Amino acid sequence: MKKAALLYEGKAKKMYATDDEQVVWAEYIDQATALNGAKKVAIAHKGTLNNQISGHIFNYLKTQGIESAFIQQMSETEQIMKKVQIIPLETVVRNLASGHFETKFNVAHLMKFKQPIVEFYYKSDALDDPFINDAQIVALDIATPAQIAELKQKALTVNTALKQFFADIDITLVDFKLEFGLDFEGNILLADEISPDTARLIDQKTGKSLDKDVFRKGLGDLRPGYEEVLKRIEDKERAINVLG
Amino acid sequence: MKKAALLYEGKAKKMYATDDEQVVWAEYIDQATALNGAKKVAIAHKGTLNNQISGHIFNYLKTQGIESAFIQQMSETEQIMKKVQIIPLETVVRNLASGHFETKFNVAHLMKFKQPIVEFYYKSDALDDPFINDAQIVALDIATPAQIAELKQKALTVNTALKQFFADIDITLVDFKLEFGLDFEGNILLADEISPDTARLIDQKTGKSLDKDVFRKGLGDLRPGYEEVLKRIEDKERAINVLG
Repeated sequence: MKKAALLYEGKAKKMYATDDEQVVWAEYIDQATALNGAKKVAIAHKGTLNNQISGHIFNYLKTQGIESAFIQQMSETEQIMKKVQIIPLETVVRNLASGHFETKFNVAHLMKFKQPIVEFYYKSDALDDPFINDAQIVALDIATPAQIAELKQKALTVNTALKQFFADIDITLVDFKLEFGLDFEGNILLADEISPDTARLIDQKTGKSLDKDVFRKGLGDLRPGYEEVLKRIEDKERAINVLG
Repeated sequence: MKKAALLYEGKAKKMYATDDEQVVWAEYIDQATALNGAKKVAIAHKGTLNNQISGHIFNYLKTQGIESAFIQQMSETEQIMKKVQIIPLETVVRNLASGHFETKFNVAHLMKFKQPIVEFYYKSDALDDPFINDAQIVALDIATPAQIAELKQKALTVNTALKQFFADIDITLVDFKLEFGLDFEGNILLADEISPDTARLIDQKTGKSLDKDVFRKGLGDLRPGYEEVLKRIEDKERAINVLG
């Protein structure tokens, strides 16, 4: 597999073509952004952390029967993924109230919901990723009702698996964002990344954020939190391998 | 039926108790508001116009099999209604793009949707009536999935009836807001008002707004538009009565 032309530079990753037209090469970059890119800082080593955390999570999801575009890691900061056409919806799952949800509905921080919430945001930097409901998605021809139902079902399945994954390493999964894409056969596939950039994670031992909120809120260096997440994932995998 | 104590003063109506605990007395006031009440102006005669237009519309909807809380007019500015417990959701139906929807999704003014859109807004002046999706409504215990489905179905039925009602008098129904309440038996009943305060109406002859957008946008006196709507409704009813 050979890395070819740069296709796209995102906020957290550069995407390259490969010599296989069905495969793309992702390079995680050492940068953190917030406020839709308005706040942007170079952070050494961050690309390595997210590349590895996201790889571990996609591998775990596969063991739980959840397919994704992730194929394998190629280096500390790189991975290859199946090429998909991204559906322009950010799918957010919330287990506990946090972030702008708290302010919007004036509810207590980390209030537990009656059941997990799935939300969609229309992916558009120009429009600032507006919150969108099912009827708007259909009326604006962004996705079909069947696709919406599948996105919700897949998002909730990922949530169930991830909650357990993080609970096993004493971390609470507050909320997270997923992206999905259509593969060459038109199947909906989990894509992009799952990392402390895209999920709110709270250490059950200390109550501290182990995610990008540390950066968003200007609470200091985000790396110790990300490193802790990776360390616990690796410790757990080592324990499983020893047992296995 | 006797008017009793003032229960509540809203932006467009005062609500009074009556000597029947299942009936309330609404008095439409001569006032227009916009921007969630931040813009507020006294407009003589407006209460009369909305009271009459809303009464005509609820009577028409009844002939189409759509029940509402409206019972009957009591004076030029007053009507009595079944007492309901308002469900704290504004239900919006859109046929064509207008208002903040245009900006939010950067679509052309009056773009036709693939199908009508139903949206919910959580009724809270303090929170500025935030846009809310089905999952949030359920998770925050505002309504049940069955109630949400019924609200949508009722809103779309009202839309079909109202589009025809207005098309018959050469008016395009762009979008509108409904409120629903629970009656004493727990049934969901259409409530509040339907008027040029709560619906966007465009004259098919002139292309002009016949609704509160005239006030919102500071385009002059809103009354000629409201009067035109009332006149066309009354002319049509007279014609039907002559034919009948």
